Amino acid sequence: MSGIITLTTDFGDSGGYIAAMKGVILGIAPETQIVDISHRISPQNVFEAAFTLATVYRFFPENTVHLVVVDPGVGTGRKIITVKTPEGIFVGPDNGVFSYVLRDYATQIGPSEDGRHRAELAAAAQAVAVTNSRHFRQPVSNTFHGRDIMAPVAAMLSKGFELTAFGEPMDRLVMLDLPQATRQTDGSILGRIVIVDSFGNLITDVRADDLPLGNRLRVELGKYVISGLKKTYAEGTGLIALIGSSGYLEIAVPGGSAAASTGIQAGGKIRISSE
Amino acid sequence: MSGIITLTTDFGDSGGYIAAMKGVILGIAPETQIVDISHRISPQNVFEAAFTLATVYRFFPENTVHLVVVDPGVGTGRKIITVKTPEGIFVGPDNGVFSYVLRDYATQIGPSEDGRHRAELAAAAQAVAVTNSRHFRQPVSNTFHGRDIMAPVAAMLSKGFELTAFGEPMDRLVMLDLPQATRQTDGSILGRIVIVDSFGNLITDVRADDLPLGNRLRVELGKYVISGLKKTYAEGTGLIALIGSSGYLEIAVPGGSAAASTGIQAGGKIRISSE
Amino acid sequence: MSGIITLTTDFGDSGGYIAAMKGVILGIAPETQIVDISHRISPQNVFEAAFTLATVYRFFPENTVHLVVVDPGVGTGRKIITVKTPEGIFVGPDNGVFSYVLRDYATQIGPSEDGRHRAELAAAAQAVAVTNSRHFRQPVSNTFHGRDIMAPVAAMLSKGFELTAFGEPMDRLVMLDLPQATRQTDGSILGRIVIVDSFGNLITDVRADDLPLGNRLRVELGKYVISGLKKTYAEGTGLIALIGSSGYLEIAVPGGSAAASTGIQAGGKIRISSE
Repeated sequence: MSGIITLTTDFGDSGGYIAAMKGVILGIAPETQIVDISHRISPQNVFEAAFTLATVYRFFPENTVHLVVVDPGVGTGRKIITVKTPEGIFVGPDNGVFSYVLRDYATQIGPSEDGRHRAELAAAAQAVAVTNSRHFRQPVSNTFHGRDIMAPVAAMLSKGFELTAFGEPMDRLVMLDLPQATRQTDGSILGRIVIVDSFGNLITDVRADDLPLGNRLRVELGKYVISGLKKTYAEGTGLIALIGSSGYLEIAVPGGSAAASTGIQAGGKIRISSE
Repeated sequence: MSGIITLTTDFGDSGGYIAAMKGVILGIAPETQIVDISHRISPQNVFEAAFTLATVYRFFPENTVHLVVVDPGVGTGRKIITVKTPEGIFVGPDNGVFSYVLRDYATQIGPSEDGRHRAELAAAAQAVAVTNSRHFRQPVSNTFHGRDIMAPVAAMLSKGFELTAFGEPMDRLVMLDLPQATRQTDGSILGRIVIVDSFGNLITDVRADDLPLGNRLRVELGKYVISGLKKTYAEGTGLIALIGSSGYLEIAVPGGSAAASTGIQAGGKIRISSE
Repeated sequence: MSGIITLTTDFGDSGGYIAAMKGVILGIAPETQIVDISHRISPQNVFEAAFTLATVYRFFPENTVHLVVVDPGVGTGRKIITVKTPEGIFVGPDNGVFSYVLRDYATQIGPSEDGRHRAELAAAAQAVAVTNSRHFRQPVSNTFHGRDIMAPVAAMLSKGFELTAFGEPMDRLVMLDLPQATRQTDGSILGRIVIVDSFGNLITDVRADDLPLGNRLRVELGKYVISGLKKTYAEGTGLIALIGSSGYLEIAVPGGSAAASTGIQAGGKIRISSE
């Protein structure tokens, strides 16, 4: 039991939705440490929430409860789930928001040609569909399950309740089709920008492990070509490439914004080859 | 004693004003859970603060201290008050910022043709003008009573001090003239948009209880007509009407922003009738 | 031991960088109260971080750990330091971000013609270069020492560890050339706008103590002339001058934004004379 609950939502900063969830949590688990990961996920952007969570959850103690409310399907038939891996406990809608967490776990338990299938299998034993309404806040709103269902469940999980207290095990979770850097026949690696951070750095889906060893790299994105990797944001001028703090290749401008300089946004393609 | 203090201010996110208040609180009550409700209330917009608090406070434990610092009259003759109802303890300037809280309480203690008068009466017994400077942070700034007076008082209330430790009971509080949906002679209900949330949903002052039962509703706002109520944000396309998570009628666009689609902002009129 | 850690960064609100630091802190010191001072420091603006911290730290208990991560030199030869004064414990890069804290301390320990030199001397005995990698999070990223070095050190300091656990004492810290209001030969005081707060108030580097006593003041900035000081934001109309809650002269517009009204931003000059 870590007594920590993290929140990731697309609620923005202006309203009281986040606070209502915190009130519900503290009513059940008054000692909880609640940590905001981000409330500025683009509205209903499940992928962005999944990736943001992926860059952060490993820095929390392993019994932390990570609650994600990016839930365009609220009130429809989509399930609410809780999932446990050796690195965290997760609560949210079953819409793929934990896809990176599950892929990480699948990678951990062994190599596989079919990471997606393995992830589903691996997680199945530890995933539960939240259905036990005894623990819900009543009356349950049609439009805010984050407050009335997920917050109470997260609070009880942070107090040490078992996943099975909340419903039946599941054998299949919704997984996003995660972008993944791919090696081309000419040996180059093709990836894409998955997110732009608050400094304007362009974060890609190319991991340090994906890069060819021992060669000077050539990075192409749009009309730009970058030669070699830097180690820090303080080296070089203009566009630079480096491995960011989450282990992904990123494009930056020392003292500036790569997004503003290049006009390139999430979704942009990137190619890495040896010079 | 819940040991929780919530904060609602118009300070924005960029400066250190919020943190200064938290420092003062933690110096007095180190174990307090401090929860931000919103710091993005429009500058000096007392109504917006009152409504935002109204949508949230009931989700917190009943001994939570709710501190609101939207205080255009700081340093003038306006009083600082603390009010206790069965649903919370409140600290802030006596400028109407607790009008919804008091109306809720008045509604609770019984029906009344004159909710405003009842609210004043009902709250009087539990309202105190904060005057006992022994508890203030010294020297008291002319421009930041939130930090030097209200934060210490909130901290001591969260530790279980009685309201009367801080001053004398009051028999009359400033109340805002709250917008209230009204039934027209033709049976239709006339309300207005009171707030736009961070998704662009248009939140009205029409409560679920105000709506005619058993009929299909017709909602008119500006040049738009909406037919019937949806249950969730995932139903329908274009403009939809539904009861939001705080119990008020709201207008939304599934996957989009009703504010951006319609150009309608807070203050816009809305009419509901039976089809 | 206060068990409080404050955070001041230029990370903005959108990513997971702040949360990653909090996860690391809570993994080491689970009971810590973490308070955000600001994450909206302009990117890499060391001065703005220094001034923002200066307006806030004295409102926290004296053993609070103030962690500042505005670190354009991350991964270069710049040192990481921890500094202790009677008013707080500070952790951050050695780039001048604690200049105001050190000047405050120098002022406290006695008058000096050369505040800068005194600050260096005074702090030397209590400043340590953080080098003991035993306490770092491994592997240490090249680009995020805030998470891998400073967060763990701050967490351990908040648990009561001595500064010397983390490295060797330093005898010289980087100090910014702080703007300081100066008295002109004609008796007037020349200062400048150092920061614009979230209300659009223009905060200057002129302290209440710098002002001539007993005379009605005349304040000139750009083409504007303000006559006399007000006590509160609620007095007067148009541009007003008053002493703000941190003890500095500021220019405001009651119910409006002085920055928007005048177009004057940080860096603008201001002159104060007696009428």
